[in-house]
Amino acid sequence: MKTPSYHALRINSKRLKRDFDELAQIGATISGGVSRIAFSRDDLLARAWFSERIEEADLILHDDEVGNTSGILPGSDPDAPSILTGSHLDTVPEGGRYDGSIGVLSALECLRTIQEAGLHLRPSLEAISFSDEEGSWHSLFGSMGLTGQLDKPLKPLHTEREEFELLLERVGLEHRTIWNARRDPARIAAFVELHIEQGLRLDRAGLDIGLVTAIVGRCTYELAFHGRAAHAGTSGQTERRDALLGAAVFITRVHARIREGYPTGVVNCGNVQVLPGAFNVVPAKASLLVEVRHPSQAVLADMEAFILRLAHDCAAEYGLTVTEERADKREGQPMSPDVMAAIGLSCDRLGYSHADVHSYAGHDAQMMGRITSSGMIFIPSVGGASHNPEEFTRWEHVEKGANVLLHTILALAGCP
Amino acid sequence: MKTPSYHALRINSKRLKRDFDELAQIGATISGGVSRIAFSRDDLLARAWFSERIEEADLILHDDEVGNTSGILPGSDPDAPSILTGSHLDTVPEGGRYDGSIGVLSALECLRTIQEAGLHLRPSLEAISFSDEEGSWHSLFGSMGLTGQLDKPLKPLHTEREEFELLLERVGLEHRTIWNARRDPARIAAFVELHIEQGLRLDRAGLDIGLVTAIVGRCTYELAFHGRAAHAGTSGQTERRDALLGAAVFITRVHARIREGYPTGVVNCGNVQVLPGAFNVVPAKASLLVEVRHPSQAVLADMEAFILRLAHDCAAEYGLTVTEERADKREGQPMSPDVMAAIGLSCDRLGYSHADVHSYAGHDAQMMGRITSSGMIFIPSVGGASHNPEEFTRWEHVEKGANVLLHTILALAGCP
Repeated sequence: MKTPSYHALRINSKRLKRDFDELAQIGATISGGVSRIAFSRDDLLARAWFSERIEEADLILHDDEVGNTSGILPGSDPDAPSILTGSHLDTVPEGGRYDGSIGVLSALECLRTIQEAGLHLRPSLEAISFSDEEGSWHSLFGSMGLTGQLDKPLKPLHTEREEFELLLERVGLEHRTIWNARRDPARIAAFVELHIEQGLRLDRAGLDIGLVTAIVGRCTYELAFHGRAAHAGTSGQTERRDALLGAAVFITRVHARIREGYPTGVVNCGNVQVLPGAFNVVPAKASLLVEVRHPSQAVLADMEAFILRLAHDCAAEYGLTVTEERADKREGQPMSPDVMAAIGLSCDRLGYSHADVHSYAGHDAQMMGRITSSGMIFIPSVGGASHNPEEFTRWEHVEKGANVLLHTILALAGCP
Repeated sequence: MKTPSYHALRINSKRLKRDFDELAQIGATISGGVSRIAFSRDDLLARAWFSERIEEADLILHDDEVGNTSGILPGSDPDAPSILTGSHLDTVPEGGRYDGSIGVLSALECLRTIQEAGLHLRPSLEAISFSDEEGSWHSLFGSMGLTGQLDKPLKPLHTEREEFELLLERVGLEHRTIWNARRDPARIAAFVELHIEQGLRLDRAGLDIGLVTAIVGRCTYELAFHGRAAHAGTSGQTERRDALLGAAVFITRVHARIREGYPTGVVNCGNVQVLPGAFNVVPAKASLLVEVRHPSQAVLADMEAFILRLAHDCAAEYGLTVTEERADKREGQPMSPDVMAAIGLSCDRLGYSHADVHSYAGHDAQMMGRITSSGMIFIPSVGGASHNPEEFTRWEHVEKGANVLLHTILALAGCP
């Protein structure tokens, strides 16, 4: 049996690198990173730049009602559901050059490579950039819009709804029509996303590729410890109801016990705000932001119950009370065995080392996975740096990742 | 030997109560407390009200360059140094009706009582209300001005110097002349202050009077723990440098170890501010406000060294660094044995139970003690409530405190 000629197909690494360097100029910061906050001027400039690349490549430019931007390579069968691939162009403030960008640019590069090779695939291919993945306004806004998962009315996490709607109008989106961005799941065959790992495992193990088996679920709480304000000099040390002391005990214990009891899970205490907050007043209130993540839905629910119990125990020990408010909960998303198989096959064909990994960060693939077969390809992050200007991935790994993406798309499109 | 007739002298409790009730109306809050922030409209109204009471009593009204207000009962010997007594009329925001007020009103009442009794004492007596004791702008401003201890230029703790100087001008004080408020220590014989305890000891022990032996020293630090921001999902739990975790460990240990190692000292961690402060970012920086108090200067210095060492130890354990900034240091102030003896004598004469106590709060007597023989009389605070509207002292104890103040003044003025 003769090996099909497309097995030898490779992306154009120089062209991809040129795109990467150009894009990194948009919103470049003096620290060597990038700030392209969703819907900011630089984010819109990056979207315009991406649209130009799409048109330059003779792909069909498609914009939708939530600010997603796609380049489409039409397939031979207009009835065949499309294969989508991509990521996002927005960044966190003072972010890095790789997060999101690599997935979008490699998607575009794969479509150009397939087009140039004259391969006529049955399904259409679509390279997509999702809007506000980082959640500067609304976490995973573009992929939630496309998959029909936005709340109606909108519930942006970090801003008032009215403010967000105004913003959408300012960038040319009509907030009353965002619901039209929803796609018919029957028209999508699969989604695959290339992304940097944002962790240390691949880099430390010297592996080329991470084959993502699941994106972890995440649950966030605001836990408020309530004590009693008192004069810090005159109130006896043993009679105080010190809200910050209770919160501090909780912080130290939750780290130790999650590590001990849930080795696959992670916890973070990201902030604490104290009232009244003076040198000489015993804290009356300490409000803590806590987040737990785990790939298993059942274990995540167990962790959630555990942190609440622990908070109440710590509070009781120090004469405090606790009020809790769940800020957000997002279930984990297992990746599709079909897409995982296509990724593994591609790695083997290309001779790249790989290992199964969980994604501990949220991604657009998490939303896409709710409506279609989805998968993710990770490439190493040197030193695990993420969400800061030091983010770096060796170009060799970017190239390998893009080639795995290429062959995964081919496999999913019926070219095994 | 016949008992002198002035031994039977008592203050006019009804008149004092009427004054107390009137004053409590100025800046009264709906919660039953008082807000008379230094130099606010209500603070100025209280000062005007006090001035009227002074003139009504035919005492000499005296204002100085830092906003202190006094009523003077001239003595028979103009060369004899004066005896000062008083406290402050300003309060913390949403404070109580007793803190400061009781000391000022009782001082006035003692002068009226002595005047009415026709006692012609050798020294002049001065009932004084010090400005901004609570430090809304500059802690102990009035008593530091009178005792010549203000920094030149001014160093207000909670505001910019220019802003504070503007404020002084607005309330009719010329900021260039505040240094003239300094009194010649040779013109002052003694200072005595009546104040609520703001703690639980007297109330719990069922005692009438606390004889203050020393006002504790206080040392405040801003301790900043520095780690590294990282993605809370993707960075390994054991590889993080979590600034808040280090700070939390410090908070729990400093409380336990100060209680263990320095039973007479107190510690408070009043606030912590976290950067960047998001659910999903490992804290890069946690800035903690820490305060320690102790009556002994040597032990306070030892506690200061101890908390810094502990902070560095906690930081090292969690891969962090610490930067420290001393916000303030105020040495403790032992009270004068002569004034203490006069207070003790008065209690015994009146048949009131009393015990020696430390003052864990700062008071104007701390500043006065730097230049003259000073003492303090404490009366019980029910439940120890302080700096809040629930502050309460039974009137019986106010009356007893005012009578102890009266007889202490008499003893200090040469009427033993």
